[in-house]
Amino acid sequence: MKPTIRDVAEKANVSVATVSRVLNGTANVNKKKKHKVEIAIEELGYRPNFIARSLSKKNTNTIGLILPSIVNPFFNEIAEAVEKTAHSRGYKVILCNSSNDEEKEKHYIRSLIQNQIDGFVIISDNKGESNIKVPVVYLDRYSVDMDQKHPIIRSNHYQGGYKAATHLIEKGCSKIAYIGKKKLHEDKDERIDGFIDAAENAGVDWESIYCEYNYDSGSKGISELFRRRVDIEGIFAGNDLIAYAVIREAFDRNIKIPEELQLVGYDDIMFSKLLTPALTTIAQPVKALGKLAVDVIIDILDNNNYVSDDIVLPVNLVRRNTTKKDEV
Amino acid sequence: MKPTIRDVAEKANVSVATVSRVLNGTANVNKKKKHKVEIAIEELGYRPNFIARSLSKKNTNTIGLILPSIVNPFFNEIAEAVEKTAHSRGYKVILCNSSNDEEKEKHYIRSLIQNQIDGFVIISDNKGESNIKVPVVYLDRYSVDMDQKHPIIRSNHYQGGYKAATHLIEKGCSKIAYIGKKKLHEDKDERIDGFIDAAENAGVDWESIYCEYNYDSGSKGISELFRRRVDIEGIFAGNDLIAYAVIREAFDRNIKIPEELQLVGYDDIMFSKLLTPALTTIAQPVKALGKLAVDVIIDILDNNNYVSDDIVLPVNLVRRNTTKKDEV
Repeated sequence: MKPTIRDVAEKANVSVATVSRVLNGTANVNKKKKHKVEIAIEELGYRPNFIARSLSKKNTNTIGLILPSIVNPFFNEIAEAVEKTAHSRGYKVILCNSSNDEEKEKHYIRSLIQNQIDGFVIISDNKGESNIKVPVVYLDRYSVDMDQKHPIIRSNHYQGGYKAATHLIEKGCSKIAYIGKKKLHEDKDERIDGFIDAAENAGVDWESIYCEYNYDSGSKGISELFRRRVDIEGIFAGNDLIAYAVIREAFDRNIKIPEELQLVGYDDIMFSKLLTPALTTIAQPVKALGKLAVDVIIDILDNNNYVSDDIVLPVNLVRRNTTKKDEV
Repeated sequence: MKPTIRDVAEKANVSVATVSRVLNGTANVNKKKKHKVEIAIEELGYRPNFIARSLSKKNTNTIGLILPSIVNPFFNEIAEAVEKTAHSRGYKVILCNSSNDEEKEKHYIRSLIQNQIDGFVIISDNKGESNIKVPVVYLDRYSVDMDQKHPIIRSNHYQGGYKAATHLIEKGCSKIAYIGKKKLHEDKDERIDGFIDAAENAGVDWESIYCEYNYDSGSKGISELFRRRVDIEGIFAGNDLIAYAVIREAFDRNIKIPEELQLVGYDDIMFSKLLTPALTTIAQPVKALGKLAVDVIIDILDNNNYVSDDIVLPVNLVRRNTTKKDEV
């Protein structure tokens, strides 16, 4: 029989409530009693029951992770990083797929709060629930349209767009196009802004086609681009899934990549290095984003620390075979 | 102000408990009272509050989905199908990634039960928690080693292995190899059993190399195979991620697919059609698996129906470019 909290209380000759207070550190217990409880715990080999502790502390050691898609590997890789970091720090992660649907997202958030989640890591482009009563860290979003200030961790997407366009231009493209999501926030520096600024600074012709961040929508986007313009020499795809659609469409139209059309993706999900041609892309620091989100939320939970500034991580160009090699 | 259950009770001149009983159908209410309540609901435009209903019914309309990996697209596509079906039927889905770790899996299951989950869809090779107090449907597993009998929904993996090997043999391979997970259950028909039976029935030489169902482990597997045997003409990879590792390794060794080495994968995740060469693979009916799992669990929750037999869905060979074309 495993010793219970009652056994500890009996042995230490104190009440169960006192033992509970010692275990949870929720209130002052006089030193002598505390010492007696600690000795009883040690002698009995008592191990506090996690669930019981959670209930008394109103703390479930569980973080909710809201994802906008469960089939985009970028979010899956982030989810894995969040899960691993959380697990190593004694936290569980519960995931919900909002399908980027604002109502569904709110529904899940309310439901998890109901279930006493400690805090959230939320990935979303939606306006969001304004009255979340537990700590929240936003991942991969901008801070406008937010009623409340929560820490935000994201990549430097402006830099990513700038690097992508600059690489295409350096590789000889004088007419470039962006295919991806349209600008979300008027006053924020997004990947499309970096793309446009790089194009305009270099004085090259640019075009943009809007689509969602998935393969099917990307297929429609690239078809439309080819209908509208046959002279485009370089494409910056807003994410790697869209880039895959570009590769497929180019293959079907017998357009050679990178000889006739150069292409830069965004995210560097694991499949991008496996394609033929392997995809040149902007790598987001997925593991660092996931780890940092967990570290920040646990810091808030443990210490009530509050990070008010956005944390913006740099991105990197990964050169593979959808853009031309450097000339020797 | 939105009308509340109290407004309905007042207008119908009945108690709140009576309105609740009418809403939840939990007990008989006399016809006249029931009618008065229904009229009051209609006139006030009252919409019952979901959370309040859940509490009174001890029913959260939430299903837990336990996944063994969050970065294998096969499970993500299943998760999407589960989520979509559940959503269309008024259920939420909470996901947990067990990383196929038995302790973690049990931990998550206990934690969700604590949070009043209605039932589970579990994907796992582990022995599993024997005393789950809510309905469970297992997806993609075999029924041995289970203390309790729960419905199991899976693909016909024996048929898949048999089809894969038969296709390689028909395409001219006389020495074939399997790279994938080793047999999990002595007495069950798994994909490796189908592979071996097809090879032996046809009298061709076969080999097997064991690895986990991920890309990195597959890379080690194919390296070992090439060290051990240089004469293999056809490979059946236990899943598509392993097949991707085979394509990469063959490319690096300048072995031409399908001319010098033919390859069949397993799962048909969305990336497999995008590779060059596009992957010939065994397609699992992912959407049907996910939808069926939800339909069965909701059927159990609603009607206490119990499906005792396993549901086994057929799989299909999808011919692409890693095996030779039919001769004309």
